[in-house]
Amino acid sequence: MPTKLRFFGISAFEITTSNGTKVLIDAYLDANTASPVKTDDLKQVDLILVTHAAYDHLGDACKIAKKFKAPVVCGADVRAHLLKEGIAPEKLIGIVWGITVEVAGVRVRSVESRHWSNMIDKDGTYRSGPPMGFIVQPDPDVRIYHSGDSALFSDLKLVGQLYRPNIGLINVSVGPVGGWPLLTGEMTPYEAALAAEWLGLDYVIPTHFAEVDADVEAFLKLMNSMTSDPKPHVKAVLLKPGETFTYPER
Amino acid sequence: MPTKLRFFGISAFEITTSNGTKVLIDAYLDANTASPVKTDDLKQVDLILVTHAAYDHLGDACKIAKKFKAPVVCGADVRAHLLKEGIAPEKLIGIVWGITVEVAGVRVRSVESRHWSNMIDKDGTYRSGPPMGFIVQPDPDVRIYHSGDSALFSDLKLVGQLYRPNIGLINVSVGPVGGWPLLTGEMTPYEAALAAEWLGLDYVIPTHFAEVDADVEAFLKLMNSMTSDPKPHVKAVLLKPGETFTYPER
Amino acid sequence: MPTKLRFFGISAFEITTSNGTKVLIDAYLDANTASPVKTDDLKQVDLILVTHAAYDHLGDACKIAKKFKAPVVCGADVRAHLLKEGIAPEKLIGIVWGITVEVAGVRVRSVESRHWSNMIDKDGTYRSGPPMGFIVQPDPDVRIYHSGDSALFSDLKLVGQLYRPNIGLINVSVGPVGGWPLLTGEMTPYEAALAAEWLGLDYVIPTHFAEVDADVEAFLKLMNSMTSDPKPHVKAVLLKPGETFTYPER
Repeated sequence: MPTKLRFFGISAFEITTSNGTKVLIDAYLDANTASPVKTDDLKQVDLILVTHAAYDHLGDACKIAKKFKAPVVCGADVRAHLLKEGIAPEKLIGIVWGITVEVAGVRVRSVESRHWSNMIDKDGTYRSGPPMGFIVQPDPDVRIYHSGDSALFSDLKLVGQLYRPNIGLINVSVGPVGGWPLLTGEMTPYEAALAAEWLGLDYVIPTHFAEVDADVEAFLKLMNSMTSDPKPHVKAVLLKPGETFTYPER
Repeated sequence: MPTKLRFFGISAFEITTSNGTKVLIDAYLDANTASPVKTDDLKQVDLILVTHAAYDHLGDACKIAKKFKAPVVCGADVRAHLLKEGIAPEKLIGIVWGITVEVAGVRVRSVESRHWSNMIDKDGTYRSGPPMGFIVQPDPDVRIYHSGDSALFSDLKLVGQLYRPNIGLINVSVGPVGGWPLLTGEMTPYEAALAAEWLGLDYVIPTHFAEVDADVEAFLKLMNSMTSDPKPHVKAVLLKPGETFTYPER
Repeated sequence: MPTKLRFFGISAFEITTSNGTKVLIDAYLDANTASPVKTDDLKQVDLILVTHAAYDHLGDACKIAKKFKAPVVCGADVRAHLLKEGIAPEKLIGIVWGITVEVAGVRVRSVESRHWSNMIDKDGTYRSGPPMGFIVQPDPDVRIYHSGDSALFSDLKLVGQLYRPNIGLINVSVGPVGGWPLLTGEMTPYEAALAAEWLGLDYVIPTHFAEVDADVEAFLKLMNSMTSDPKPHVKAVLLKPGETFTYPER
């Protein structure tokens, strides 16, 4: 059985391992207009990963963790928040850059993300911590990198050399941001293309969009125009919300 | 009309664009003994930028934002603080590394700063977040880098390659620090010279001093003794508090 | 008189300078089952350094600072915590990456650590800040690097070039972690070996263990099998808790 990777829009993914274990990353579902799947639709969740505290990444992690009594791998600030929300401490695996854990049979390594992680609780409490990217190993030869909204940084080359991810889920778009005057997301399409290159990926899947937008299209064009015979270049794969990528490709 | 850049001491600058828009960066004025301009002297402020939460960088941002109803581009912790102080949320543009915004007709890109950002409110609340440098584009061919007290890091080379700043405002001095036993600031003069080189600047303006001190002098000597014909080296320009740099130079 | 470096297990060290000044780093003693020395055994402490807020690094800093009225060099979050615990502000030297201080005749430079620093107080207050590594110069030609649980990052090469540490205290092990499903610490033995190489050390002392474990053994084997004639390689020195390294070696 291959590994399956389903996209829910923005940065939300469900990984299904070859033996049926289900992992959610950045499970922003109910308020995510792009997601065809809502928390009530979920039938099985074995592990939840949260890259950082932001409404569109923390998403429904708390609700889903409670419903499925699923463990959550996250940073210190998200852990403190979920503790306060009543999640049992033994379900909360707070880690940071460098640390590798094995939970629900899945290996997860935390790697640097050059971003932020912070929240203001309903009672006004402000909390921040280090944001993370993940290298998830759902099956022996599958190493999926999730960028967690990172900006571009040169040590992505080191991440590529040390952990050899074959699939990358990388933010390429400013995404849906309401009334904000944002011109770029954390990586421009060009920077995301550099990231894919530096990580030495086989496949890159663009993220952080609801509908395919100009940034996503610019990224795909850029990736398709970068070739370096005889070595094939990183292959860009577009997933629209709801679509699934199967690895190895069939 | 050229772009104008006025120094107020420490890291405080006023940028005046060719069409008269006024941008304040790290507006530490009233308690800044070096600044010839106080908040009461300001006649026009269109945009306020804050690199990080520190008394000598956050400065009078809150007071000025209220007086001029000016938008503030800042990090998450500064945003949470200003919200609490009564600034309207629509005036607070919280961003992080990688993100570019256009506010008041001026483009601002947040770039990494290897520093800290934290504060303790009067009520004892502690808050921290990611500190920033900025690439400010007040006019089409003018890209001003403000280091925001960063320590030296190699990805300044990447910042230089990607965003090609032509003017850099870089902390070179330990500055006025009262009774603290500090021997260096966040960059020594030599490290600041490396930063100017790595960023590929045309002009570097040393910052983080009230009066010209030994660190500033060491930095200027170092910059003037670094030449690499036929390419001219980064040109160091000393501004004393109150002085203005005009770009292009006249 | 040479410089002495005594290991207490995990990341706790006591440095004794040639003139008898005593510096504690990450003084986790009383709850540290590996440490043969408890706070009640200490006779003299002139300076306390804390790399980051974590139970096994902040350790007994507060208790020891009160007992000896010793200054504490630490980050912003640790400083805020110790202020709240009643340590006098003039004893708390909060610094960040890049800054060098001289306290009790000892030079201490803060350098980046790619880790976290956070705590939850008894009253539920959450606090975070930038974690640090240190370059400690207890005697003129002795520069000791303490990694403070950093993950591997390429700018350790820059730290090596700029500050030329001759002795490195580097976390190589996941250490004693109770019921957590951790497979690695912040650096694997291989990553710690790269760190020692990149820092250009003369000596590396593995840390973050209570008893010598498989990670420590893997690190020592790796270091001993890395040679590059004619230049001698970094020399790995194993200290068990309670043991002392004398520099220069006698």
